Amino acid sequence: MNTPALSVRHNHFLHGGATAIPRPRSIATSTSPFRVRMSLQENGPSVAVVGVTGAVGQEFLSVLSDREFPYRSLKLLASKRSAGKSMKFEDRLYTVEELTEDSFEGIDIALFSAGGSISKKFGPLAAQKGTIVVDNSSAFRMDENVPLVIPEVNPEAMAHVKLGSGKGALIANPNCSTIICLMAVTPLHRRAKVKRMVVSTYQAASGAGAAAMEELVQQTREVLEGKEPTCNIFNQQYAFNLFSHNAPVQPNGYNEEEMKLVKETRKIWNDMDVKVTATCIRVPVMRAHAESVNLQFEKPLDEDTARDILKNAPGIIIIDDRASNRFPTPLEVSNKDDVAVGRVRRDVSQDGDYGLDIFVCGDQIRKGAALNAIQIAEMLL
Amino acid sequence: MNTPALSVRHNHFLHGGATAIPRPRSIATSTSPFRVRMSLQENGPSVAVVGVTGAVGQEFLSVLSDREFPYRSLKLLASKRSAGKSMKFEDRLYTVEELTEDSFEGIDIALFSAGGSISKKFGPLAAQKGTIVVDNSSAFRMDENVPLVIPEVNPEAMAHVKLGSGKGALIANPNCSTIICLMAVTPLHRRAKVKRMVVSTYQAASGAGAAAMEELVQQTREVLEGKEPTCNIFNQQYAFNLFSHNAPVQPNGYNEEEMKLVKETRKIWNDMDVKVTATCIRVPVMRAHAESVNLQFEKPLDEDTARDILKNAPGIIIIDDRASNRFPTPLEVSNKDDVAVGRVRRDVSQDGDYGLDIFVCGDQIRKGAALNAIQIAEMLL
Repeated sequence: MNTPALSVRHNHFLHGGATAIPRPRSIATSTSPFRVRMSLQENGPSVAVVGVTGAVGQEFLSVLSDREFPYRSLKLLASKRSAGKSMKFEDRLYTVEELTEDSFEGIDIALFSAGGSISKKFGPLAAQKGTIVVDNSSAFRMDENVPLVIPEVNPEAMAHVKLGSGKGALIANPNCSTIICLMAVTPLHRRAKVKRMVVSTYQAASGAGAAAMEELVQQTREVLEGKEPTCNIFNQQYAFNLFSHNAPVQPNGYNEEEMKLVKETRKIWNDMDVKVTATCIRVPVMRAHAESVNLQFEKPLDEDTARDILKNAPGIIIIDDRASNRFPTPLEVSNKDDVAVGRVRRDVSQDGDYGLDIFVCGDQIRKGAALNAIQIAEMLL
Repeated sequence: MNTPALSVRHNHFLHGGATAIPRPRSIATSTSPFRVRMSLQENGPSVAVVGVTGAVGQEFLSVLSDREFPYRSLKLLASKRSAGKSMKFEDRLYTVEELTEDSFEGIDIALFSAGGSISKKFGPLAAQKGTIVVDNSSAFRMDENVPLVIPEVNPEAMAHVKLGSGKGALIANPNCSTIICLMAVTPLHRRAKVKRMVVSTYQAASGAGAAAMEELVQQTREVLEGKEPTCNIFNQQYAFNLFSHNAPVQPNGYNEEEMKLVKETRKIWNDMDVKVTATCIRVPVMRAHAESVNLQFEKPLDEDTARDILKNAPGIIIIDDRASNRFPTPLEVSNKDDVAVGRVRRDVSQDGDYGLDIFVCGDQIRKGAALNAIQIAEMLL
């Protein structure tokens, strides 16, 4: 899920016109163009974006603007290679600066998405200087001193982190698959307590970065033309195919992506007893993940109650129209904030009302990464 | 699974050249072109293929030839629309005949793949005339008087059906997802008894017929060109997207495809107690299905033993290379007979050795339909 620095903002296809990615009105859209932006404010925090040229870095800017996140100043940081580039944001021109040890002087909040090794090196440095770091990499997620936060799920984990206290901190953004899964499952867990969860994912190209999205497009063109597909990012054909997630496989046979779902769920729910298994699969879809989730509960929970709970859950939209066979799809949630849930039904393989099957879709770059990080930053305001 | 009559034999892309569909040597390939075909034999049965112009009908011919199925005579049957067409098979020209009530006079074995309503009308008629019907539709699968057979799994279910006895019969071919799943799971079930199975599918276009495969290609071209995708077969964009299986949803919230997995598993295993749940999803892949399967066993079964059992199971190939992250993919099993299994690992969400996760891929048109039907016919010889 770490995303290399390569901008996709200008690729119309990846971001989808009205054609490729229909936007039903029922899903939250961006703010109206008629509103006057008030985000540049004297009393806002000073903000830095680390890895600003990457897919998630660019989405950080897009979400900051969409949500009118207040800021006194904005610093755009990237590697030496990108330093000096000009970038327009909310009608002002910024120059991308090289990330160095001195970059965080006077910075209140830094949003990191430049890979785990950059986070490991510069995150603690920034925190020492009094910056609150919201980190999108996996570097600190399982560090017991670092809160791992989905704002709708466990805001209490970061209650001790205060802006303006002069004390810096690290806060970790969970992995995309975990965020999308727990957005849907947590409201049900609060009511009936999940004992065991079996997850199978259908993950988009975007999780492997902008270059992977471009490779999928290129390969698809090549296969349609009868040519040999180009395999740079992945070691096999991705177009019209799918494969086990490319994260390294651990000695227990699970890949790292799967174990993130297992371990992060326990930490976020603060429940070391919850049983989770996952099979993570990469499918030829652009930027939104889907997940098939089977749930076993401690207390009974019928499907109508489950649907009511989800209907009232923040950040969730229900698409569950059995008569017209309309359920969540990755395309429908692409470029959207909300996570969509459907196929809510009593599990016929469990007795009584102790089991449910659901199907969940969420935008990997947005709620799976940039949006969640900025919601964390908003809780500091 | 039901495949409308529309030939795809001449679409190079769908069937894949060396480019799109690499064929590893480890998977069984077709018979050598140097062998002299001996299938047209005086002492072979008289064979009819019903729905010969469809994708599965065409695959029937291909598999009959590959496996040198012996036949005394061959009758190619289809709707009135296709009657009169010429079709070459094993160096002889045949004329496609219209399917009528009189088509089965003197026919020993009839392979049906022309949809449920044709099977319902003509299957019992043929059986009355002494023909043994192997039916690929869902018409008779749950009929308690009709055996539902995967030859590697439950050959005993059709032991009472004898060729040359003068008595006709109906034998049903299971649904593609069920065949592919049970090919992998049955060898493990025999050793450790499956108590509960949670399946999530990744299903190819071919299951919805040749026209659906063509629509996926067309839509993909259109999306790459920035055009509105054409939606005829499916009611939404399929290219770079995925969606809940298009089978009608039943009152219990499961779609028919999912309930086939639930019910057919019970019948094939002759085990009314086995618990099965399934979530069936259509992914933008051409002709092979993938399935993520979570298993709960009655008796312990460690992953090494499971791998050994699968290694020796007929019709199964193991692709499970953790070090190089190489596991089964739909592309790798396309146009292949064997079902591939990988990601075999102890389920971390279950105590001890009572649970396994596996990932399975199989060609939907071949083992999922035509090959399985012809293997059933072979057992009659």
